[in-house]
Amino acid sequence: MDLNADLGESFGVWRLGDDDAMLDVVTSANVACGFHAGDAATLARTCRAAVERGVRIGAQVSYRDLAGFGRRFIDVPPAELTNDVLYQLGAIRQFAEVAGSRVAYIKPHGALYNAIVHHEGQARAVVDAVMDFDPGLPVLGLPGSAWLSLAEDAGLPVVHEVFADRAYTPEGTLVPRSDPGAVLHDAAEVAERCVRMATKGEIVAIDGGVIAVKAASICVHGDTPGAVQIARTVRGALEEAGVTLAPFTASQV
Amino acid sequence: MDLNADLGESFGVWRLGDDDAMLDVVTSANVACGFHAGDAATLARTCRAAVERGVRIGAQVSYRDLAGFGRRFIDVPPAELTNDVLYQLGAIRQFAEVAGSRVAYIKPHGALYNAIVHHEGQARAVVDAVMDFDPGLPVLGLPGSAWLSLAEDAGLPVVHEVFADRAYTPEGTLVPRSDPGAVLHDAAEVAERCVRMATKGEIVAIDGGVIAVKAASICVHGDTPGAVQIARTVRGALEEAGVTLAPFTASQV
Amino acid sequence: MDLNADLGESFGVWRLGDDDAMLDVVTSANVACGFHAGDAATLARTCRAAVERGVRIGAQVSYRDLAGFGRRFIDVPPAELTNDVLYQLGAIRQFAEVAGSRVAYIKPHGALYNAIVHHEGQARAVVDAVMDFDPGLPVLGLPGSAWLSLAEDAGLPVVHEVFADRAYTPEGTLVPRSDPGAVLHDAAEVAERCVRMATKGEIVAIDGGVIAVKAASICVHGDTPGAVQIARTVRGALEEAGVTLAPFTASQV
Amino acid sequence: MDLNADLGESFGVWRLGDDDAMLDVVTSANVACGFHAGDAATLARTCRAAVERGVRIGAQVSYRDLAGFGRRFIDVPPAELTNDVLYQLGAIRQFAEVAGSRVAYIKPHGALYNAIVHHEGQARAVVDAVMDFDPGLPVLGLPGSAWLSLAEDAGLPVVHEVFADRAYTPEGTLVPRSDPGAVLHDAAEVAERCVRMATKGEIVAIDGGVIAVKAASICVHGDTPGAVQIARTVRGALEEAGVTLAPFTASQV
Repeated sequence: MDLNADLGESFGVWRLGDDDAMLDVVTSANVACGFHAGDAATLARTCRAAVERGVRIGAQVSYRDLAGFGRRFIDVPPAELTNDVLYQLGAIRQFAEVAGSRVAYIKPHGALYNAIVHHEGQARAVVDAVMDFDPGLPVLGLPGSAWLSLAEDAGLPVVHEVFADRAYTPEGTLVPRSDPGAVLHDAAEVAERCVRMATKGEIVAIDGGVIAVKAASICVHGDTPGAVQIARTVRGALEEAGVTLAPFTASQV
Repeated sequence: MDLNADLGESFGVWRLGDDDAMLDVVTSANVACGFHAGDAATLARTCRAAVERGVRIGAQVSYRDLAGFGRRFIDVPPAELTNDVLYQLGAIRQFAEVAGSRVAYIKPHGALYNAIVHHEGQARAVVDAVMDFDPGLPVLGLPGSAWLSLAEDAGLPVVHEVFADRAYTPEGTLVPRSDPGAVLHDAAEVAERCVRMATKGEIVAIDGGVIAVKAASICVHGDTPGAVQIARTVRGALEEAGVTLAPFTASQV
Repeated sequence: MDLNADLGESFGVWRLGDDDAMLDVVTSANVACGFHAGDAATLARTCRAAVERGVRIGAQVSYRDLAGFGRRFIDVPPAELTNDVLYQLGAIRQFAEVAGSRVAYIKPHGALYNAIVHHEGQARAVVDAVMDFDPGLPVLGLPGSAWLSLAEDAGLPVVHEVFADRAYTPEGTLVPRSDPGAVLHDAAEVAERCVRMATKGEIVAIDGGVIAVKAASICVHGDTPGAVQIARTVRGALEEAGVTLAPFTASQV
Repeated sequence: MDLNADLGESFGVWRLGDDDAMLDVVTSANVACGFHAGDAATLARTCRAAVERGVRIGAQVSYRDLAGFGRRFIDVPPAELTNDVLYQLGAIRQFAEVAGSRVAYIKPHGALYNAIVHHEGQARAVVDAVMDFDPGLPVLGLPGSAWLSLAEDAGLPVVHEVFADRAYTPEGTLVPRSDPGAVLHDAAEVAERCVRMATKGEIVAIDGGVIAVKAASICVHGDTPGAVQIARTVRGALEEAGVTLAPFTASQV
């Protein structure tokens, strides 16, 4: 099982999250590429720190929106979006290579991640960018999203993820953040759910029913209060349960 | 002889210069990388248009300064500058590759170009970025600059350029723009000087004396009134004088 | 009748439109406030030039989006949008005052203009900003929009505009730009329509039927090819028809 | 005696310092205006919080440099700088007014603060902006700086500040940050120095000698580790020594 988290989301003088602590926990780092966060020095530092620990580097591409941290939908025309994604992929690739590694996968950030669950035009735009960048690049995303469906159609390797601290509906989709109980805060409970997902392929949905999930990666958060503690608890519980933690891209050279 | 010009300096809705016309004249395009100009769509379009015409793509890296078009010195600490340059190199490289080519050389822009004539810390920072990017990448610059001197020490291929429309001092340096006669505006006169440089390695300095110059590239401007006309006149005169126009990087694969 | 146009939309080295020519034609200038266009020097220059000609200064507020020129919808949370609009109002007010005038009205730009035709949350956010800024500030907009309706409810003076070069549906709404015939390019035809609107309160809709319109201002464009010529033709035709051209805010001190 | 600190330096999702805690300590808040820090929501929140506590709002204007947090000298031409400062003054003024107060003074930030100690062109540019904004606006700065000298010549009210945690040379200038002992970290020592400055007008210089200083405001930092604790200790010690803490602008309405 892989553990992924958003990292490298500082900008200039401003810091976000404890990247060093998180890099000791996760196996895949979704590294911000400069459009929602991540000045060039942060990209360099994060890529270096990831490589030192054997953590894989993913491109966490975003809308161009520092003021909104990429969390606001922007109605970017698809052709522009393809180029914006390519620009970011080129930048993060450079720092991954200077650090002695490569871009191992792509996982869009924030509002773009959410938009391309349904927005076919933008989903296709991101797929187009990935095809131009590297038609063998794994894409990480939400099962059932337009993004993964179009990526699969294009022949890209598709990887499913689950969220450690999010409640699921009986249909297997995320309970909206605005609903009560949507986000879990108890480290032990989160860890126990992750173990069940990883060992039995099951999640208890918000109505108490059990749903089947198949995911190669679990997303943990790095920037919320208690984030590091929850992530460590998840990792510890998985290891104790005999789950091997390794990048989902481990089979790649 | 090579002809180079700054291109791809539009941004979003704003256009600068007539890139298509200039790409029919020059052999090397210094393509803006997004920090002083050049949104991602412009990078894509410019790289594609250059490749279609066999024009080489150079990375026109800059300070991060859209509002000032990279024309204002910024006292960026060298370590930050190295990363800012790497970020831009990664981005332009991506578009060059998608267009079926590669970054053939680097030529810093505006205030950065001027700063690293003398500012050793920043000059070394740019050299460091180039060494990390590709230790065989040709660097284009002003003869006698700290930038070229440090690049040469680092083992980088160094290429000298002259300016088609600038007056030179008897010492072979540029007459400051603020001095009378610093910039030449007559297309025929500019063209005639370029032919003399290219065929005899001579420039008439502002005091009327003749100085020897050795340059592999002539810089023409693309964004001033009459720029295209001057550039065409220069090219025409060079061809008429039997000078072969080809990228200075032509020997590279 | 008032003539308004978007002005002050240059940014740094990049110029857009011929502001000086347009300021000789219009009676109200929608001046960009820095978020989609308009660096501080442009704001200063545009306000000064408007005041010299007796042209009124309107605040052309926008989403924060230089790369997209404010033409892309951004899902900004209303509370943030209120503050973004206030920030821009404060900035343009400063330059209006230094030029010896004041902000005479507000007209949102581009995607924000279009969004608040229907998006009640954002429309209310802009109204809230105007109420905080000056509860007597006239607002200029599209008849039938949520924006004007909410502004009216809040007690703000509401002013209707029509578009000189756009086709109208039989219901009096704009024909979408993507439809054939949506934009008129013939200066004489555009001018003739403006005269009919101004003198008889009528527009010929795209189906040939005649609809009644009541507007205090006609919007002409400043940044398209031929824009200045069309604007001059419109002004000339209106004057010839005996229509007095004056700012819609002329009654204000 | 007045206590001032830099506040409102968050941006979007990124937070800097503990503004609420600092606002309970200081009497004057240097509020960032959006060019080095401070999105519009932060300006609104900071101005409101300052007014609630009776803390005066100062305009902390800066170079346009979010990536560098305004800490890098930028060679902005004076005329541009005047407009950039006016833009920021207009924006912060708007939020101060909406919060029920006004801009009580100006204190430039970071590299601009440092530059205009000596750089006459930029110092005069900032003075010009203040004269355009409000020729009665107090300016806060370093005794002996070109900035204060030119402000005084222009008739602006000039206010001197000392730094709570900085060592001074025997000549009364700041020991450069790069020198050993330049910054003091012990809260008790810092507080004791502030009391001596406030009650006796004396500072012990780095060579042990005593120098005379006359300042109406003491600058404490809000964004370093332990900043709040040091600021509270300073305030407590001053109050215990019978020093009345009040805004230096208290006499203004």
